[in-house]
Amino acid sequence: MPRAVRTDIVQPDGRHVYLYGAYAPPPADYQAPSMPNGTYQRRWNPLRREWVLVAASRQGRTFLPERTDCPLCPSRPGHSSEIPASHFEAAVFENRFPAMVPARPAGGLCEVVVYTDEHEGSFATLPADRLAQLAEVWTDRYRDLSSRRGIRYVFIFENRGEQVGVTLHHPHGQIYAYPFIPPVAAGELRRQTPGCLQCRLVADELKGRRRILINASGIVAYVPGYARWPYEVHVATRAHREALPSLTPAGRRALVSAMQRIARAYDRLFQVPMPYMMAMHQASAGRPVAQGHLHVEFYPVLRDQGKLKYLAGSESGAGVFINDTLAEESADRLRAVLD
Amino acid sequence: MPRAVRTDIVQPDGRHVYLYGAYAPPPADYQAPSMPNGTYQRRWNPLRREWVLVAASRQGRTFLPERTDCPLCPSRPGHSSEIPASHFEAAVFENRFPAMVPARPAGGLCEVVVYTDEHEGSFATLPADRLAQLAEVWTDRYRDLSSRRGIRYVFIFENRGEQVGVTLHHPHGQIYAYPFIPPVAAGELRRQTPGCLQCRLVADELKGRRRILINASGIVAYVPGYARWPYEVHVATRAHREALPSLTPAGRRALVSAMQRIARAYDRLFQVPMPYMMAMHQASAGRPVAQGHLHVEFYPVLRDQGKLKYLAGSESGAGVFINDTLAEESADRLRAVLD
Repeated sequence: MPRAVRTDIVQPDGRHVYLYGAYAPPPADYQAPSMPNGTYQRRWNPLRREWVLVAASRQGRTFLPERTDCPLCPSRPGHSSEIPASHFEAAVFENRFPAMVPARPAGGLCEVVVYTDEHEGSFATLPADRLAQLAEVWTDRYRDLSSRRGIRYVFIFENRGEQVGVTLHHPHGQIYAYPFIPPVAAGELRRQTPGCLQCRLVADELKGRRRILINASGIVAYVPGYARWPYEVHVATRAHREALPSLTPAGRRALVSAMQRIARAYDRLFQVPMPYMMAMHQASAGRPVAQGHLHVEFYPVLRDQGKLKYLAGSESGAGVFINDTLAEESADRLRAVLD
Repeated sequence: MPRAVRTDIVQPDGRHVYLYGAYAPPPADYQAPSMPNGTYQRRWNPLRREWVLVAASRQGRTFLPERTDCPLCPSRPGHSSEIPASHFEAAVFENRFPAMVPARPAGGLCEVVVYTDEHEGSFATLPADRLAQLAEVWTDRYRDLSSRRGIRYVFIFENRGEQVGVTLHHPHGQIYAYPFIPPVAAGELRRQTPGCLQCRLVADELKGRRRILINASGIVAYVPGYARWPYEVHVATRAHREALPSLTPAGRRALVSAMQRIARAYDRLFQVPMPYMMAMHQASAGRPVAQGHLHVEFYPVLRDQGKLKYLAGSESGAGVFINDTLAEESADRLRAVLD
């Protein structure tokens, strides 16, 4: 089955579900869950000069359900999940507890990306074919959401582990399509040097070599010298590529494969599943397009076995990160557990 | 005993200790703890355009010691704490596990502020005289550190609770004297409107009334309409005051008293000690002084009983906060438990 095959379903409450690859219809007793009423606003924070999304229905969202109640597993008789299918390869659906909704004034979109219909495992353990498919799913979603009216930035990310607030264990990530360019992206996209900053950063790391973890098939992974998190890793295209659609399918496979090697190294580092955030930064959407250079930032939240890095007073109140670890030493430790 | 009395002690490793008010010398067997060797650097993060502090000795820092081993309690025979006194009122000392040191290239200073020599309790339960003394201690430290060469911002803050990474339960806060203006302060201090932004924000909240919690003795406390945290509260002077020294002692007492009422309301809100960060924002130090308007921001990290608000993908990777709660409803709930 070719990878691009997508089946679109609209749930009774209007939310879209996209099933990628082969799938089997849901059982006859399938009942789609529906979105609770909620208040969705965006408010301008004049002190921080940033938008805050207010989503006042999320308090009731599903919290670490039993394995048999998993809303990301296939549906079966007696269990209607978020996915109207009794078997699937990868699925994307509009979040039932979103941070923003397409309607004004919030004006955005939140999607959940289910990596596989297998409940166990993680991004790190996805088989090669599912991993390659995920790259195509992300690309499809990026293309689709970027072309929507009012969307200014498509943010593909993953939260992994209870320590970063994950409420479902089934392997999945998320996509937020913001109606504005978020501050972190805006900071990166605002040109301040001639040429592309990310191109220069990659070149510098390659030249220094000291913090490089992977340099293969056009993809570079490194612990940035200016890491905020003890084991932060950035994965970037070596050549200037704006976004996922600017890569060939082989280029995308190389990207996700490097990402997966990093995720596996994390799990080996302290011999526990590493809780992390993965943030994919790309070009903006809509007009005018701000030039970007595709890269992925991993923020693992452990600084040592059983020890979390907290964002406390200095980080939250002043915006100054304190890193207990030298990036060069982190790179050594990660390199030692890289497959 | 007048409040301004301060006794200065220099530990064998060169770190300063300031004892405020009455104190009794340490036991004869007192042995000052000494600072471990470490690497202190600051590194420029070009993607975020911010400094990251690298402090590579902190990994070994004291972690939730037994009550009898508390390093912030008075010293006694057989137990040498950080405080060379067998009794004290309030104490400040240079952190033995700092995020930065006065020497280049980090070039800053980290102090621990011990609110009382009583191990139990918290900022919320400090007796009135200790609370008033704390205001004077903060003011003294702000004055002293602001006048140091190379210091550009004095940041008084408190992390409270294990959920924000606190490793010692004895009531205490911290002060970071940064050799640069941190990004959050820089954003606030950069004028963008005619007049003072904070003056306008206070006036707006007072006019709207809906989110006001306290308006007394020249101090206003409110849930800002653009809160990032579900129960975020800002406490500001109603009139334009740059920093703690610009207030009268009575004005400072009014400020800390309002802060304490907020901290007490937090503890009542979910009937558990509320983990929070407290961040005091003031004018910058050094030249040129950036105009400020003294205000305190509380970031409590619970969004409900037993439920933490996490800074996950959207917050950390995009810079967009999602708040599950309407500021107006949070204000109602906090007002209901305010003393």
